[in-house]
Amino acid sequence: RTVIINLLSCFLQGILERLDAGEIVIGDGGFVIALEKRGYVKAGPWTPEATVEHPEAVRQLHREFLRAGSTVLQTFTFYASEDKLENRGNYVAEKISCQKVNEAACDIAREVANEGDALVAGGVSQTPSYLSCKDKTEVKAVLQKQLEVFMKKNVDFLIAEYFEHVEEAVWAVEVLKESGKPVAATMCIGPEGDMDGVSPGQCAVQLVKAGASIVGVNCHFDPETSLETVRLMKEGLQAAKLKAHLMCQPLAFHTPDCGKQGFIDLPEFPFGLEPRIATRWDIQKYARKAYDLGIRYIGGCCGFEPYHIRAIAEELAPERGFLPEASEKHGSWGDNLSMHTKPWVRARARKEYWENLKPASGRPYCPSMSKPDGWGVTKGAKELMQQKEATTEQQLKELFQKKF
Amino acid sequence: RTVIINLLSCFLQGILERLDAGEIVIGDGGFVIALEKRGYVKAGPWTPEATVEHPEAVRQLHREFLRAGSTVLQTFTFYASEDKLENRGNYVAEKISCQKVNEAACDIAREVANEGDALVAGGVSQTPSYLSCKDKTEVKAVLQKQLEVFMKKNVDFLIAEYFEHVEEAVWAVEVLKESGKPVAATMCIGPEGDMDGVSPGQCAVQLVKAGASIVGVNCHFDPETSLETVRLMKEGLQAAKLKAHLMCQPLAFHTPDCGKQGFIDLPEFPFGLEPRIATRWDIQKYARKAYDLGIRYIGGCCGFEPYHIRAIAEELAPERGFLPEASEKHGSWGDNLSMHTKPWVRARARKEYWENLKPASGRPYCPSMSKPDGWGVTKGAKELMQQKEATTEQQLKELFQKKF
Amino acid sequence: RTVIINLLSCFLQGILERLDAGEIVIGDGGFVIALEKRGYVKAGPWTPEATVEHPEAVRQLHREFLRAGSTVLQTFTFYASEDKLENRGNYVAEKISCQKVNEAACDIAREVANEGDALVAGGVSQTPSYLSCKDKTEVKAVLQKQLEVFMKKNVDFLIAEYFEHVEEAVWAVEVLKESGKPVAATMCIGPEGDMDGVSPGQCAVQLVKAGASIVGVNCHFDPETSLETVRLMKEGLQAAKLKAHLMCQPLAFHTPDCGKQGFIDLPEFPFGLEPRIATRWDIQKYARKAYDLGIRYIGGCCGFEPYHIRAIAEELAPERGFLPEASEKHGSWGDNLSMHTKPWVRARARKEYWENLKPASGRPYCPSMSKPDGWGVTKGAKELMQQKEATTEQQLKELFQKKF
Amino acid sequence: RTVIINLLSCFLQGILERLDAGEIVIGDGGFVIALEKRGYVKAGPWTPEATVEHPEAVRQLHREFLRAGSTVLQTFTFYASEDKLENRGNYVAEKISCQKVNEAACDIAREVANEGDALVAGGVSQTPSYLSCKDKTEVKAVLQKQLEVFMKKNVDFLIAEYFEHVEEAVWAVEVLKESGKPVAATMCIGPEGDMDGVSPGQCAVQLVKAGASIVGVNCHFDPETSLETVRLMKEGLQAAKLKAHLMCQPLAFHTPDCGKQGFIDLPEFPFGLEPRIATRWDIQKYARKAYDLGIRYIGGCCGFEPYHIRAIAEELAPERGFLPEASEKHGSWGDNLSMHTKPWVRARARKEYWENLKPASGRPYCPSMSKPDGWGVTKGAKELMQQKEATTEQQLKELFQKKF
Repeated sequence: RTVIINLLSCFLQGILERLDAGEIVIGDGGFVIALEKRGYVKAGPWTPEATVEHPEAVRQLHREFLRAGSTVLQTFTFYASEDKLENRGNYVAEKISCQKVNEAACDIAREVANEGDALVAGGVSQTPSYLSCKDKTEVKAVLQKQLEVFMKKNVDFLIAEYFEHVEEAVWAVEVLKESGKPVAATMCIGPEGDMDGVSPGQCAVQLVKAGASIVGVNCHFDPETSLETVRLMKEGLQAAKLKAHLMCQPLAFHTPDCGKQGFIDLPEFPFGLEPRIATRWDIQKYARKAYDLGIRYIGGCCGFEPYHIRAIAEELAPERGFLPEASEKHGSWGDNLSMHTKPWVRARARKEYWENLKPASGRPYCPSMSKPDGWGVTKGAKELMQQKEATTEQQLKELFQKKF
Repeated sequence: RTVIINLLSCFLQGILERLDAGEIVIGDGGFVIALEKRGYVKAGPWTPEATVEHPEAVRQLHREFLRAGSTVLQTFTFYASEDKLENRGNYVAEKISCQKVNEAACDIAREVANEGDALVAGGVSQTPSYLSCKDKTEVKAVLQKQLEVFMKKNVDFLIAEYFEHVEEAVWAVEVLKESGKPVAATMCIGPEGDMDGVSPGQCAVQLVKAGASIVGVNCHFDPETSLETVRLMKEGLQAAKLKAHLMCQPLAFHTPDCGKQGFIDLPEFPFGLEPRIATRWDIQKYARKAYDLGIRYIGGCCGFEPYHIRAIAEELAPERGFLPEASEKHGSWGDNLSMHTKPWVRARARKEYWENLKPASGRPYCPSMSKPDGWGVTKGAKELMQQKEATTEQQLKELFQKKF
Repeated sequence: RTVIINLLSCFLQGILERLDAGEIVIGDGGFVIALEKRGYVKAGPWTPEATVEHPEAVRQLHREFLRAGSTVLQTFTFYASEDKLENRGNYVAEKISCQKVNEAACDIAREVANEGDALVAGGVSQTPSYLSCKDKTEVKAVLQKQLEVFMKKNVDFLIAEYFEHVEEAVWAVEVLKESGKPVAATMCIGPEGDMDGVSPGQCAVQLVKAGASIVGVNCHFDPETSLETVRLMKEGLQAAKLKAHLMCQPLAFHTPDCGKQGFIDLPEFPFGLEPRIATRWDIQKYARKAYDLGIRYIGGCCGFEPYHIRAIAEELAPERGFLPEASEKHGSWGDNLSMHTKPWVRARARKEYWENLKPASGRPYCPSMSKPDGWGVTKGAKELMQQKEATTEQQLKELFQKKF
Repeated sequence: RTVIINLLSCFLQGILERLDAGEIVIGDGGFVIALEKRGYVKAGPWTPEATVEHPEAVRQLHREFLRAGSTVLQTFTFYASEDKLENRGNYVAEKISCQKVNEAACDIAREVANEGDALVAGGVSQTPSYLSCKDKTEVKAVLQKQLEVFMKKNVDFLIAEYFEHVEEAVWAVEVLKESGKPVAATMCIGPEGDMDGVSPGQCAVQLVKAGASIVGVNCHFDPETSLETVRLMKEGLQAAKLKAHLMCQPLAFHTPDCGKQGFIDLPEFPFGLEPRIATRWDIQKYARKAYDLGIRYIGGCCGFEPYHIRAIAEELAPERGFLPEASEKHGSWGDNLSMHTKPWVRARARKEYWENLKPASGRPYCPSMSKPDGWGVTKGAKELMQQKEATTEQQLKELFQKKF
């Protein structure tokens, strides 16, 4: 039955029709980390001017995710709000307008989506304006500008993602909701809740009340932690007798050791995360757990490469009734190794082998966990970081320690 | 002085002129692993039919390496010999001829090379014919076919790479040498030498005597181990009073625990290698050590992504006098983090931080090293694996144990 | 001032007078694990018949703890209740009576205590009678028998320790309290509370209400976890406006990975715990944290060897005003290494070195954490384990899984 | 047959008669590390004045080893040469004469040996005189003094142990040989040979030629490495057509990461070695491998506690025909756990479980291997460390780096 639903839903248009029909929707992976490694995004600012500067690179990554099984392609508009781009503008060779970046992102995503049967989602994320304490009107104005492009380019639905404060997320949903298009909202929080101490359950309730049809989390935490957060959101919604589809787009990094603010605070962020990268088998486990938890919009964020998305599609192929295109180059559970010349490598061509493997790091001089930085600070950071009197790191550190 | 040499050499045509002038030549990274993750290569067979099936994906990867600083683009012709492709042909949807695969590889590499100032190298690798004990004439005939394409497409020079047996490598050099083009030869061996027990020093001597102008290693071992092997090759050449340029294209995986046959025998190969992936800083250390050892052709193999190649180019920028194009999106030693909103992340914007970081795996339930498989067998494998009487894994394993 | 209190209190008799005066009381370490390694206790039953069979071995261990700084010597009467000894009696060559074991334990402890200025504490622990669902009267009768010996031998005070269920612990305190001697009570629980789900705070409240003057935890968890449990107990007492002295006697094993039932469920228990053993520096940190938390009865349990107790005494020497006798053979923070012949070993003769050392395991093929056993069961185990129908492990496992 | 030999040999007097008859001789464990933890030996000097100061502690440790299965009790005379004791004399409260220390050591060992059927071995070790470049006559005179005590006290045989330079070891054998008693000689070297670059094979040859009947290694390296060194010694003796019994007394610490000078150079030495401590199962594997290699004098050194020696005796019980006394408190391969109350702990009562356990460290923030100190110096250290001009660590370090 599930199989039929999934097959049928391919011909349905909208995201909500698909989810309402019980289809499993597969998201895509994280563009900023993937394109940083490919040479098109600068870590630190993490802005998407590559849509204008190097559209072929963005197009190719979209294509790989489509091929891997993504049913949604998100426009590469992360941190593409005007205030963010201006903020970081000085390093972009020629000044590229916010509008051009967003428009190009929409065009590229649509072009590739049309090569398959994918939906295009326009995405907004948290703004510098909010973090610098601008008021609701100003923050909404910034988000409104991006929305205008999405409407002009007629994306299929909208995602408000990567919000650390539910207050700003709610504002974003309110803005996007005015468009009349379906709105998904995901926060980059863990089980401890948002930066102001609002629990995941409460966040979910507020987002749904603001108009989101799909809620969940993205980024900042590993799959296991993220699933726990979505579970808490689900509980919150149930307690409030609210209905919404659930969505999960976690990191493809193992981060059992991170604190409330997620992987940003780990000492390895962002240039030493390699040993934490999830294997395809880790992601298959994640996909199965997500499905069992009732999540039907299952994707990824930073660290997810095309083969991680393919792993989701392969794990859920029995339920969906089909394999993604890229599986032509991938045997289920490594069965393509059965053609290897060495018998002991052939012996790895089976599910049990990969499912139980505890992969070694090859790094005996390194620990397996780190203590997160953040100087132990979990609140008040926002205010303090803008204090004029703290001009050096040292002064700032002392201020923090004094205050908390 | 080095700086001037490097700048000048950009206008010189050939690989040998560049190396003779003291230029640092930067290779590219491993295509099969990178394209497997992107969804275009099948692990196990590892054949490059993507050049015909998905040229845009191959083109994009070349472009990323060019942008990252590669001065050589290798044609994606790994395992593209006729005997290998036929062997694996059954899984390729439409039968694609060996010639088409090789020709397309040359065309794509040349197209991208012309976007910059890169050389195109045609590459051949070990053949199933040799492993199945075909004689010298037959093996050479197989390699000759690939060479014909390279001559027709007029590549700039030739590389015989990924040979486990020096005997076959010498045959390959002999074939390639007839073309009149410069020949580089790298073996996939470690400090213990080739599969027949020939030491690295002796391998290097034989390869140079056969006509290779550049010798070294590629694949199978991590940077540290590979550098040790090249050091032994250098010693062997010095003892024999032979001259050649040195080349190193190792894995971007940490493999301190692998045995004589390299990473193939590690239990994590090929689908659980993630925790072993080198950081960009690991690669900067490798580039520096390689340079200090006198190696001037410095590249990578499996696991090397564009940002790893960029790391080589950035480390050696003082000697070369310029940064690669992709460094416009990368601050040296993480200095772009100085714009981050969190002060403790800003504190990571310095060389000392990344140089000394011991990155955690986030995997406390996993070990840091593995015991290689291979059932303890390091020689005789070739013969035994073809014994008709061993039809099952178990029989084969018993045969091995009986014989060794 | 603290120094004077500690010096003066040496001449005070009782445990409560000492604690009331602000003295730091140092406990001793775990006898069963230490004597198992020395060859006198059998793992599994863990009974103390060595007091009769090999008094010299028990005496020597007491002496080492006294010398290391213990101000309390506990009688080696762990699991020395009649029901436990009978239960295990079949493996003791000659049947040794419960009374003899307990009497010998008292005599030995007193003999050694008199060599210094130590107090003798008679100890009782949880009983098989309780676990097999005997009623309050029966359980109390078993404990009463041990108490009679303690009264006859006139120990200085009494400890009810190693209770997993607060109900039984309360019964034990009630029995001991009748003696008129001071009673300390410690449970082997973690922050999640006792096996029936009673929180640490509630456990502490119940124990104090039953008559305990000193409450805390012993065994089952590492120092860090145990301190957290005592902190919760302290909070519970404060909320209930009750006063009691706090006590902590944790494992000298690192167990960040254990579940509710503690180290018993770790796969390494009891014969593979070596890599988890705390260093003396770990224990100094524990002693300091315990002190800062307001705990004044600071000792150890399983895994604590004499040098671990010495580490407590050395860390708190500034507060206490004196060093233990065994410090004549130990320089503070390794300063005795300043006489070593190798300069790089001499360089280790300083606090900063040992405080910051991250000791390697020398075991690259082992993980750093384990998943606890227990088949995921945290309650109901007691009842199920007595079900007659489950005669094999497999049947039992299935029953568990069915029920929970 | 082996069983009968071992049973018969119990009634034979001497060490050589036993070994010649094919008996397995079990040594004891390391006194300095064990007694340091018990509070009677000072790390750094590592001298044995406890034989006079605290004879009961020394006696108890001997007794535990006897009970664990040791067939040889070594006098606790490590570093008890006059030059060493004087050197360190200033920290011993009352000046204790070298003669008194050695005599007491002999008396205690003999007293305990007589409680069973053990032999007493008088031991000498390397001297400060040699390290400070005194000549052969002076060094021999120092060793001669200890020998006089051993002769007066009539030990059963003599051991020259813990020599880093074969030259001094040979001098020691020559001195001991004059006594007419059997002489065993063990060096604290690894597979790379002694500090002057003499290979293990050559060391063994020189020691046998000097008169040693038993040769091997002790201390400095873990069991696996030590067995490899003894294997090389065996090869050397075979090549030289010499005969001698083989002996191995390694560390009970895992040290795969140490360099030529052994565990002294590891950053964890001596106060952070805990995570490296071998389990009893590690030692059983060692005992089996040692036996299979033809070693018949199998014991331990630093880190070996009584239960480690018991593990040797239990592993080789089938060959010897009997279990040690302490096995009354130990079930083979954990079978005493079959009485545990929790079924999942009962499930650990089997060989396969403990044999395959990869014990976790419980230390996710620590690495699994360390880089040894020693500033990269492996030779010349002896001379440099006495250079008058190097008065500070820094000067010394610079001198080292200049010279090597």
